[in-house]
Amino acid sequence: MEKHDNVFIKKQNKKWVLDIIKNNRPISRAEVSKITDMSPTSISRIVQELEQDGFIKESDLISNGVGRKATLLDVRPDANFSIGVELTEKHFKIGILNFLDEMTFSQTFPVEDVEDYMKTLNDGSRLIKRIINEQEIPMEKIVGIAIGVPGFIDYENGVVAHSTQLKWNNVPIVEIIESATSLKAIVDNDLKMKAMAEYTAGAAKSSKSSVLIGIGSGIGSAIIMNGEFYRGENNIAGEISHTVVDINGNLCRCGKFGCLATVLTESSILQQARKIKEVSSLKQLLDYYNSGETWAINIIDRVTTYIVTTITNILYIYNPEVLVLSGFILEDFPEIQALIKKKYKLYLTEPFKTHSRIVFAELKDHGIVKGAGIQAQKVLFRLQ
Amino acid sequence: MEKHDNVFIKKQNKKWVLDIIKNNRPISRAEVSKITDMSPTSISRIVQELEQDGFIKESDLISNGVGRKATLLDVRPDANFSIGVELTEKHFKIGILNFLDEMTFSQTFPVEDVEDYMKTLNDGSRLIKRIINEQEIPMEKIVGIAIGVPGFIDYENGVVAHSTQLKWNNVPIVEIIESATSLKAIVDNDLKMKAMAEYTAGAAKSSKSSVLIGIGSGIGSAIIMNGEFYRGENNIAGEISHTVVDINGNLCRCGKFGCLATVLTESSILQQARKIKEVSSLKQLLDYYNSGETWAINIIDRVTTYIVTTITNILYIYNPEVLVLSGFILEDFPEIQALIKKKYKLYLTEPFKTHSRIVFAELKDHGIVKGAGIQAQKVLFRLQ
Repeated sequence: MEKHDNVFIKKQNKKWVLDIIKNNRPISRAEVSKITDMSPTSISRIVQELEQDGFIKESDLISNGVGRKATLLDVRPDANFSIGVELTEKHFKIGILNFLDEMTFSQTFPVEDVEDYMKTLNDGSRLIKRIINEQEIPMEKIVGIAIGVPGFIDYENGVVAHSTQLKWNNVPIVEIIESATSLKAIVDNDLKMKAMAEYTAGAAKSSKSSVLIGIGSGIGSAIIMNGEFYRGENNIAGEISHTVVDINGNLCRCGKFGCLATVLTESSILQQARKIKEVSSLKQLLDYYNSGETWAINIIDRVTTYIVTTITNILYIYNPEVLVLSGFILEDFPEIQALIKKKYKLYLTEPFKTHSRIVFAELKDHGIVKGAGIQAQKVLFRLQ
Repeated sequence: MEKHDNVFIKKQNKKWVLDIIKNNRPISRAEVSKITDMSPTSISRIVQELEQDGFIKESDLISNGVGRKATLLDVRPDANFSIGVELTEKHFKIGILNFLDEMTFSQTFPVEDVEDYMKTLNDGSRLIKRIINEQEIPMEKIVGIAIGVPGFIDYENGVVAHSTQLKWNNVPIVEIIESATSLKAIVDNDLKMKAMAEYTAGAAKSSKSSVLIGIGSGIGSAIIMNGEFYRGENNIAGEISHTVVDINGNLCRCGKFGCLATVLTESSILQQARKIKEVSSLKQLLDYYNSGETWAINIIDRVTTYIVTTITNILYIYNPEVLVLSGFILEDFPEIQALIKKKYKLYLTEPFKTHSRIVFAELKDHGIVKGAGIQAQKVLFRLQ
């Protein structure tokens, strides 16, 4: 075996031990040794290195297993930090996550003119630096910044390829943010960030695979398998907005008939409602629904049929352990949630009826920022 | 580092070197050393072991690179063999593949009464043993048997969970075949086997990811990413038969409206045709189409619209590098192929227009058997 193999494996083992301590804290050296199948001597050496590096500490707790009493190991929450950012056409939401993926700070700032991407990103970078300063976090403890953006993202090159919402094309967002903040940065689709948050710390926690559907101003999905995104060749896998569910339906702006985008976005739903009344929001439509207006009831009935149809399609397509329903249409209206729960019993067949968990997103407005912070830790954190 | 780590890594490296020689044959020791970044001494040791084990040999060729002349390494095609099997309600197709995944033998045998699974599988096992005997292949050189079966397969437990075509439920096919042949066996969905064949040696060769759609007596898809199947939690991912494309369409036997199964299987197409004429096969319908019968032209027009809609749906959902179109409806009728090629230009948007390759399956009737043999080599072959 070559020398660099040894160095590589040593570093890999060190990261492995750190992850085990982080995910099972507090934990004894003996337990770590058992999980890793590494010798107590190796574990002691690695633990000592991780203590010196400032990632872990002896906890106040004592193991209550058999044999010699031993203090348990824990991680230091302030070992490092990541910055998670959500960017929409209206706001920046900036959060700080500690080493335990706990959000220690979060604030929302309006965006003035999102189309001016240079100004927007420089403003954002200035806000990030100010927050780091105010929160008194040493720059060297920050692993980096991750930004969740709606649209098609060229993840590998750190470019927003196309965002309808931001009206951006080929914006090298990572380059701009890195140069303005002197921190490492990554960018990904906002729904992917949200999916990662729910997978790691929300409704899909402890699952092996999960798919998150988002239905709101747009519709999309994000797939996570064994902790990694399923991206496809162009990072577009899961962009179900232009998949067809009603081949004889209305023309979509993509040029096909009956895409999900023509029936399951807020604007497409309101377009129907406006044939009867001047309705300005889904909230208002639900008010008509609750006051018993038949046209509103019919619209919501049809919308929820489309939603459960989409749910079953997704189950056959990706067959995930957990399906997370998110986006304001799915999260903010108990009436819609109740109808969905009632209807999907009629649509689900075996083995999904028995084996698939269908849940609503838990992290609400913080999902994207939290997921971005988690993703920054995953991608940008490197042991020395 | 522990001792068993070393043994594991050594075996892993040995397999790696063998794969490199197999995939780049003939190749010099120096090139192998360069690709693996392992020292010439390590490579020489591993090569010597692989020669002793009978997997590789010195070829007659001499490297024409710079430096000292060196004989090139090649694999022995007869180093080992795998048995690939296709089982349908009508026949067994049994093939033998050598170490280079070349099919050295294949033959089809009728199945008498497929519902009697015990008799069917014992007959099949007897045929396999007879062929091995006739072809004079030493049993110890056979890595195992892989069987492709239509239906839902419990891959991990080697069980055919449910097959509509074979009318089987919970048949422990692997246990039965292993006990009857004394060989190791695996079972998987037939479309997965076909996808593996096209990915390894057919229309999707040299791609990183590919999805194969099959449209014939049934409709389904199989996804391969980096050489592995994307199975989902219950090995059902890609079972698009009961995904909805026409929410206001006909009732499907699954209880939903407008599943692909209601519009894109031979029987559903013929059902339409029979409203006009007593048509017994798709071939006959195409005859009416070719003789200019308007009803036949309209049916085929609508069928191909459904097909290209399914193609674009799949591209958004899985975003593969290559999409392979297979199954007799897609493979056997040039008229349908021509219409598809014409229509999908109207349906494909960027980035698929530029980045996705859409191809027809190449391996025809041998796809399932070949893929099964390849899969047996992948899963069952172990270095000593």
